[in-house]
Amino acid sequence: MTTASRRERFLSIFPQIVDELTAYLQKEGMPKDAVEWYQRVLDHNTPGGKLNRGMSVVDTVEILKGSDLTDEEYFKAALLGWCIELLQAYFLVADDMMDQSITRRGQPCWYRVPGVGNIAINDAFLLEGAIYFLLKKHFRQEKYYVDLLELFHDVTFQTELGQLIDLITAPEDSVDLSKFSLEKHHLIVVYKTAFYSFYLPAGVTDEAAYKEALNILLPLGEYFQVQDDYLDCYGDEKVIGKIGTDILDNKCSWNVNVALQNATPEQRQVLDENYGRKDSTSEQKVKEIFASPNVDVAGRFARYEQDSYDKIIKMIERVDEGKTGLKKQVFVSFLEKVYKRSK
Amino acid sequence: MTTASRRERFLSIFPQIVDELTAYLQKEGMPKDAVEWYQRVLDHNTPGGKLNRGMSVVDTVEILKGSDLTDEEYFKAALLGWCIELLQAYFLVADDMMDQSITRRGQPCWYRVPGVGNIAINDAFLLEGAIYFLLKKHFRQEKYYVDLLELFHDVTFQTELGQLIDLITAPEDSVDLSKFSLEKHHLIVVYKTAFYSFYLPAGVTDEAAYKEALNILLPLGEYFQVQDDYLDCYGDEKVIGKIGTDILDNKCSWNVNVALQNATPEQRQVLDENYGRKDSTSEQKVKEIFASPNVDVAGRFARYEQDSYDKIIKMIERVDEGKTGLKKQVFVSFLEKVYKRSK
Repeated sequence: MTTASRRERFLSIFPQIVDELTAYLQKEGMPKDAVEWYQRVLDHNTPGGKLNRGMSVVDTVEILKGSDLTDEEYFKAALLGWCIELLQAYFLVADDMMDQSITRRGQPCWYRVPGVGNIAINDAFLLEGAIYFLLKKHFRQEKYYVDLLELFHDVTFQTELGQLIDLITAPEDSVDLSKFSLEKHHLIVVYKTAFYSFYLPAGVTDEAAYKEALNILLPLGEYFQVQDDYLDCYGDEKVIGKIGTDILDNKCSWNVNVALQNATPEQRQVLDENYGRKDSTSEQKVKEIFASPNVDVAGRFARYEQDSYDKIIKMIERVDEGKTGLKKQVFVSFLEKVYKRSK
Repeated sequence: MTTASRRERFLSIFPQIVDELTAYLQKEGMPKDAVEWYQRVLDHNTPGGKLNRGMSVVDTVEILKGSDLTDEEYFKAALLGWCIELLQAYFLVADDMMDQSITRRGQPCWYRVPGVGNIAINDAFLLEGAIYFLLKKHFRQEKYYVDLLELFHDVTFQTELGQLIDLITAPEDSVDLSKFSLEKHHLIVVYKTAFYSFYLPAGVTDEAAYKEALNILLPLGEYFQVQDDYLDCYGDEKVIGKIGTDILDNKCSWNVNVALQNATPEQRQVLDENYGRKDSTSEQKVKEIFASPNVDVAGRFARYEQDSYDKIIKMIERVDEGKTGLKKQVFVSFLEKVYKRSK
C-alpha cells in the first residue's frame, strides 16, 4: 500500500471515533452546543499532523502479526493509534498556549480561534479524557487492558516532566544561556518526546523486552527531536506548516546548545545579547553565528544525522529476536520514517 | 476523634506523598530546580482546602470496615483521599486560569504566583499525573486496581464535560441570560461537582449498588453545589477564604437562576443590564434584586436547604443494606458534613 493510501485508510477511522464520543455526550443529555463544541475540538486538533505516531501503531501491529490485518484488527490498531494522536493533541493545545504560538499545522492554534481563548485548557483535558473513554470501550476485555492504561499514564507523566524542565530552563521572559547545555537538552528531549513518540507506539510492556527496546527507542526519539529543532530553524515553513520561533522564544534547542559549545567568547556575547529577544534583527544575528564556519550548525547536524542513523541501525542488527520477542522490522520501520525527513 | 485531630492526622500523610513523588523525580535524574518546582506545585495547590472529599474516603473505609483502621490501612485510605484532593487541585488550578480568579483558599491563585503564569497549565497536568503514579505504586496488587483507575478516569471526564457546559453557557465576555435555566444549572452541577465530590469518595464500583448510590449521591452533590453558589454571594469571605465573583463573572449560578425564575419584567431588565458586568455598582444592583421580597434568594435557599436535607435523609433510610451491600452510615456521614455548612 502506498504511503498516501495508508494515510487515507488511517484517516477514514477518525470520523467513527468522533461519532462514538459525540454519541456518548448526547446519551448523557449534554446540550447540543456542548456536543458540537467537543466535535470541533476533536476535529481541529487531532488529524492534520503528520500522523506518524498513530500510523506507527498500525505498522507495529502488522509486523508483529506477520500478515495483513482483518478489518476488525485494523480498526482496533488504528483506534489505539488515534489514542496516541489524541495524547499528542492534548499536549499541543496546551503547549501552544504556554508558548503563545500563533499557528500550528498551517492553521491558527486552537486557543486563538475566536471564542475559544482560555476554554482551550479544559478542551485539552477533554482530548485526554477521550483516550480513556475509547480504551475502556474497546479494550476492556483484553488481558493487557491494565498494561495499556499504565502505558498511557506513564508516558503522559514522563512527557509532562520533560515539559516542566523545558519551561523552567528557558522561560520566555528571562534569557540566561548559562542554564542551557547539551546534557539538559538530552534530558528534555528524552522525556518530552522520546517516550510518547516512540516508546508508546512500539507498545512494549514485557519487562524483559522493555530495556532492550528502550535502548533503541530513546536514542531514536532523541534523534527525532534534534531533527525537529533543526527544522525549526532550517526547514521549509511551507512544508512544515508553521514558522519556526525557537530563537525568538528562548528555546533550549539543539541548535543553540551546539552553538554555545563551539562559539568564541565574542560570538558567545552576541548570543547572550540576541537570543530569545522578540525582534527579527536579533534573530538574524543569532542565525549568522549559527552559520559561521567554526559553529556551522547545519554541517554539525548533517554529521549528527548520519552518526545517529549508523548507531541505531547497528543496535537494531544486534537485537536477538528469539530471546526478547522483539521484531527488528518494527524498529527499522520507525527509523525509516525519521531518517532525512523534511517535516 | 475530634474533627481537628482527624484533619491533622489526614494532613500528616501529605508530606510522605510529596516525598514519594520528589524521590521518583530525583531517581529519574530530573534537575534540582525541576524537583523543587514540583514540590512547590504540590504544596501550594493540594492541602489548604476543606479536605472534605479526601477525609470522606477515610470515613467511608472506616464505616465499611466497622472498626478502627490499622496504621497501614489508614495510610492507604488517606492516600486514596489525597488522590481525590490532587484531582480537585488539578481542576482548580485550571479553573482559576479560565475564570481569571485572583485568590483561592486565602492565598494567590497558582498562576498568579510570580514566575508561574501559563506554566500552571503543565503544572495542572502534573497534579493529575501524580494520581496515577500513586495508584500504581500502592494499589497495583489489589484486585480492584483497574476499577479504581476507571473510577478516576470516568469522574475526570464527567467533571470536564460539566466544566465545558459551564464555560460555553456563561462566557465571561458575552452576557446572555436567556441561555441560563435551572435545568442547565442542574446539568452543570451534577457533572461538574457531584461526581467527583461524592461519587468518587464513596467509591462505589459494584454494578448493583451503583444505581442506588447514585440516587443518593447525585442529589447530595447538587445540594452541595447549590450551597457553594449561595455562599459565593452570601458567605463570609473571611471564613471561605475567597471573595465571591460569580455575579461579576457572569456565572450560571443557582442564585441568578432563581432570580430569573421569579423576577418581574422590570427586575429582569435590571438583571440583563447588570449581570456579568465588571463593576461593583452593577453587582450591587443585582444583589438588590436578589434581596427583593418577591425574589428573596436567601429565603428560597433556606427552604431549598431544608427540603434537600429531608429528601436525602428519607432516601438514606430506605436503603436496603443487606441487598445492596451499601452502608447507610456512609451517606449520613456525607450529609452531616454538608448540612448548614458555612464554608
